[in-house]
Amino acid sequence: MEKGAPAEPEKETQVDLGKLLNVTVVVSAKDGRRFRGKLTQYDAHMNLVLEEVEELPQEGPAAKHKLVLIKGGNVSSISV
Amino acid sequence: MEKGAPAEPEKETQVDLGKLLNVTVVVSAKDGRRFRGKLTQYDAHMNLVLEEVEELPQEGPAAKHKLVLIKGGNVSSISV
Amino acid sequence: MEKGAPAEPEKETQVDLGKLLNVTVVVSAKDGRRFRGKLTQYDAHMNLVLEEVEELPQEGPAAKHKLVLIKGGNVSSISV
Amino acid sequence: MEKGAPAEPEKETQVDLGKLLNVTVVVSAKDGRRFRGKLTQYDAHMNLVLEEVEELPQEGPAAKHKLVLIKGGNVSSISV
Amino acid sequence: MEKGAPAEPEKETQVDLGKLLNVTVVVSAKDGRRFRGKLTQYDAHMNLVLEEVEELPQEGPAAKHKLVLIKGGNVSSISV
Amino acid sequence: MEKGAPAEPEKETQVDLGKLLNVTVVVSAKDGRRFRGKLTQYDAHMNLVLEEVEELPQEGPAAKHKLVLIKGGNVSSISV
Amino acid sequence: MEKGAPAEPEKETQVDLGKLLNVTVVVSAKDGRRFRGKLTQYDAHMNLVLEEVEELPQEGPAAKHKLVLIKGGNVSSISV
Repeated sequence: MEKGAPAEPEKETQVDLGKLLNVTVVVSAKDGRRFRGKLTQYDAHMNLVLEEVEELPQEGPAAKHKLVLIKGGNVSSISV
Repeated sequence: MEKGAPAEPEKETQVDLGKLLNVTVVVSAKDGRRFRGKLTQYDAHMNLVLEEVEELPQEGPAAKHKLVLIKGGNVSSISV
Repeated sequence: MEKGAPAEPEKETQVDLGKLLNVTVVVSAKDGRRFRGKLTQYDAHMNLVLEEVEELPQEGPAAKHKLVLIKGGNVSSISV
Repeated sequence: MEKGAPAEPEKETQVDLGKLLNVTVVVSAKDGRRFRGKLTQYDAHMNLVLEEVEELPQEGPAAKHKLVLIKGGNVSSISV
Repeated sequence: MEKGAPAEPEKETQVDLGKLLNVTVVVSAKDGRRFRGKLTQYDAHMNLVLEEVEELPQEGPAAKHKLVLIKGGNVSSISV
Repeated sequence: MEKGAPAEPEKETQVDLGKLLNVTVVVSAKDGRRFRGKLTQYDAHMNLVLEEVEELPQEGPAAKHKLVLIKGGNVSSISV
Repeated sequence: MEKGAPAEPEKETQVDLGKLLNVTVVVSAKDGRRFRGKLTQYDAHMNLVLEEVEELPQEGPAAKHKLVLIKGGNVSSISV
């Protein structure tokens, strides 16, 4: 499927979150909450810092936060 | 069961996800969600990046995402 | 209970899955699903690759998959 | 998206909690409780020490604590 | 409570499962299932291999298995 | 906020439980139980030993224990 | 609070279970079960071996076991 030299070019120790820096993402958390905001920091544990955040409720209006740090262990998925 | 020389050829530190790169897979997540998309990145924690993703609901229409990163700890199974 | 010389011959760092390679097994997963298929790969995290897989539902017909990778952390038991 | 020299300036081994020291934060815990207080200590496991703490109940009045140590494994998110 | 020389003779890196090898034990698993069988293998993760196994249901007849590997992370207790 | 030389004086590998030694604390456990007692030992896993302990029930009278060791993995928070 | 020389005498890598060896303890497990028995072995993962064990049910008579090994990951607390 891969062609040529690149020996396992994708198998990094960590998938690349760099492309999502400063991008508005939606983070689904294990505790059922969802957050939409700009990804401004991450680390190897997938701890994430979002800024200008809307917490998207199941129903009703979104709560707003200046900054939310979501613990890596609480991250289920990040979507764009 | 094995014949001849191959000394534990299968017992790698990580099962081989390379064959699934750029293949459309279905990922079942611990949080009950299911995603169908093209696997474009993975790492040793089994963090997965899918592109051109459909989130398959229990019922109703599928939500679409350009890209979804599913945390390794949230992956239950990957099927083809 | 053991007699003679064998100094802890069974206490390996990993129980031996090699004997189950290419054997049809039933895997019970933490998420409640059960899979029957041929074990074709495994690793030290007990990530398992089954081929020619039936997903055994609580009721109704079995779903079929060409290949299923079950995350080690989602494995409860493997039976023969 | 990044321009120029900064090679992965954000990918630290740990996102930076230093900016939140002595700031009043809201911590959402896995066990469903929420705490508002001044962050006075943290460590690499994201164990957090809050002082002058209000435990925010789903309903009814807030309980007050002089100091609460929240185990890292129990932290879901920190918001400002 | 201990008398004399034995400096912490019990504090091993792993409690001794060796005495239970080839003994019929009952394993209670986290997923609520219980298995009675002969312990034939174990490892440092407490992955267990039972042979000649009865899966003891809450009610109704016991299912029988030739061999069951129970993942260490799914083991709650082993009793004799 | 910190003054002078101390570079990241708070970011220890472990938040400081030493100040709470011999102090009466309330420990909230993951399993929903709460304990009030004097903290007499702790370790890097946040395993805690309380002495002269009251187990605080949701309702009804408190059970008393001479000593309770609470596993670090079962600790949600410690409050004063 | 501490007086004199003892520099962090309590902060061991593991709280001391040695004092509880051969003592009758009650172990509360994550899976909701409780066991009363004599602690005869433990290790760094807090795997525990109890002998002469009563499994204390929510209601009804206690089940008896000659020996129970409780997996460290299933231990919530140990009380005396």
